[in-house]
Amino acid sequence: MGNGEPTERVRVRAREGETELERDDVLAVEEPLEIRILPDGGGPATSFVTTMRTPGNDEELAAGLLFAEGVLEAAGDLRALDRPTDPRIEAELKANVLIATLAPEAFARAGKLQRGTVMGSACGVCGKTSIENVIPADRPPLSSSETVSPEILFRLPERLRERQSLFARTGGLHAAGLFSLAGDLLELREDIGRHNATDKLVGAYLRRGELPLSDRLLMVTGRTGFEIVQKAFAEGIPIVVSVSAPSSLAVALAETGGVTLIGFLRDRRFNVYANPRRVLRSVDPRT
Amino acid sequence: MGNGEPTERVRVRAREGETELERDDVLAVEEPLEIRILPDGGGPATSFVTTMRTPGNDEELAAGLLFAEGVLEAAGDLRALDRPTDPRIEAELKANVLIATLAPEAFARAGKLQRGTVMGSACGVCGKTSIENVIPADRPPLSSSETVSPEILFRLPERLRERQSLFARTGGLHAAGLFSLAGDLLELREDIGRHNATDKLVGAYLRRGELPLSDRLLMVTGRTGFEIVQKAFAEGIPIVVSVSAPSSLAVALAETGGVTLIGFLRDRRFNVYANPRRVLRSVDPRT
Repeated sequence: MGNGEPTERVRVRAREGETELERDDVLAVEEPLEIRILPDGGGPATSFVTTMRTPGNDEELAAGLLFAEGVLEAAGDLRALDRPTDPRIEAELKANVLIATLAPEAFARAGKLQRGTVMGSACGVCGKTSIENVIPADRPPLSSSETVSPEILFRLPERLRERQSLFARTGGLHAAGLFSLAGDLLELREDIGRHNATDKLVGAYLRRGELPLSDRLLMVTGRTGFEIVQKAFAEGIPIVVSVSAPSSLAVALAETGGVTLIGFLRDRRFNVYANPRRVLRSVDPRT
Repeated sequence: MGNGEPTERVRVRAREGETELERDDVLAVEEPLEIRILPDGGGPATSFVTTMRTPGNDEELAAGLLFAEGVLEAAGDLRALDRPTDPRIEAELKANVLIATLAPEAFARAGKLQRGTVMGSACGVCGKTSIENVIPADRPPLSSSETVSPEILFRLPERLRERQSLFARTGGLHAAGLFSLAGDLLELREDIGRHNATDKLVGAYLRRGELPLSDRLLMVTGRTGFEIVQKAFAEGIPIVVSVSAPSSLAVALAETGGVTLIGFLRDRRFNVYANPRRVLRSVDPRT
């Protein structure tokens, strides 16, 4: 554990019918990442959240998660991201801790959220404390008038797939890809949790000061739960696409939030679950 | 939302190649369940946790989750489970809230955990606040000497499948099944989250006073993350089986906790990732 690799080789006892053998197998690495926060200017670091993630792009994950939770509102709110320097902390533990130095206003926003939570691999709405908070009613829906054609959508699964790692392609890790509306894959991130892959992706743009992503499309492998749409909404991404099914609450949030939600995109088919206005009705072969 | 059904029918705009049509689609319902706690004898109810779940068997889910988190140590610790009675609370909200009346010791244990967290669909370790807590080192590993034969394992996927709902069989919901070591499926629960399905299953046994489950086998659909093994360990279940891959941390915890962890059980094949001593080496056709 803790060597920072996304996969790990293990020895298994494999049974195939009547035959038994020892052989190697590859696992997706799942390790906790604890995000500690402290205010710029000084003060002790406190634990904000611990998420179970696949190591790699940890800084992006921390930035993206803090943004999705509403702690960061702009790149400048995140003053620094560091590993612990205390020599008494073991190297393995250090690899699973990041300390975020926050602008005072961002630190104050974090203080309003519950702290010190371990989140599971698909948990993205941790830190919101009541049912009433789950669907934000005080924010306007996304109003981007960008559109995408069916022909471009049909090409996305293959474009995502050809950039996934071999292990991810076999279903070992989830992937999240950010596409232009012309169908170009701009960035891809992988993780054992879809929501982490999404946070890593968004964190990359946040750190470069390139949010909001109002002319972009987010594609995730697997299902679309509530938290994926919540993140897309927070980041201003108007179109969310998946190869699989959305949940009822993902559809409800997409409707309310003005997010176009597309599912079951495979074999030149897809379903539009919310805000179909951004999907062109004709298949235009020129696009 | 909030009608208590596990699935919901929606209207979608479906695209198939050049053709576009409107048609019905069925979604897995994902709704928050807030668990509030109060001490037996009086005091105000406080929010303990909110989990995203598929409605149904909510009382079992609440009991199983409180047990897995270490709040309940025995059935008697849970004095009552009620819906809110305040007439000012809307019916839809009431359907997503349960109030657990706890024995004073259990209430005190809950107080030591972080409160008021929303957990995502695959989040099962929420409430533990530090990396050091993730792998419990102060508890002895499971020592059950029960065994299971490969021939019995081979039959489990079909037995789980034939009891799953039609929607679950198509991948719409996860299932968790508790089996005897003779391969009989004793109980099955379904949810959009594997960990919720597991909590519902265990909650049923807890409420009947039938824990620990030291001569039982847990089977889940999909992957085995850390939290599934954590729950099995808490409940004393010595064998955990999945049709898919475990994560690295699930394997590490299973090794430490004395849990036999089996993955990729399909087509008369499987891999044993930890504690293979409970899997018989010979295929005995009589069992």
